[in-house]
Amino acid sequence: GDARAGRQKLTTCQGCHGLDGLSKNPEAPNLAGQVESYLARSLEAYRSGDRKNESMNIVAKELSDEDIADVAAYYASIQVDVLPP
Amino acid sequence: GDARAGRQKLTTCQGCHGLDGLSKNPEAPNLAGQVESYLARSLEAYRSGDRKNESMNIVAKELSDEDIADVAAYYASIQVDVLPP
Repeated sequence: GDARAGRQKLTTCQGCHGLDGLSKNPEAPNLAGQVESYLARSLEAYRSGDRKNESMNIVAKELSDEDIADVAAYYASIQVDVLPP
Repeated sequence: GDARAGRQKLTTCQGCHGLDGLSKNPEAPNLAGQVESYLARSLEAYRSGDRKNESMNIVAKELSDEDIADVAAYYASIQVDVLPP
């Protein structure tokens, strides 16, 4: 996926997941720095209906394979530093 | 949930998700700093079978409501700094 292209496709995503990949509402997970293949698989599962979520099933239905790859690449590309617990 | 109690319950989780909440294999998402309610809902959905994943359905079946709350609190409590893209 192309992270720069993905950034241009976040119109719908950013309301809940942010441009920075940090959740904007308690229903939505953080996506910043998430594993790219996990993000892509999640979007594919939402698109096919294998994974159920009212909002995400609607949103993902609009996405092409390329859109999914690009958006996954964008959120995965956000650098995250974890402070050891 | 009680994050300190959750830390004592990670025996199974940490193989894939780490004590630090960072994925140890490409099948597993990062959990560090994830939204607590999202983590709890995900574990509940894996436990009930509403959300399908071969490994997680097996693991989650063993968890009590308290276990879920504690493990969610632990992973949510890990501090994460996001570097703006």
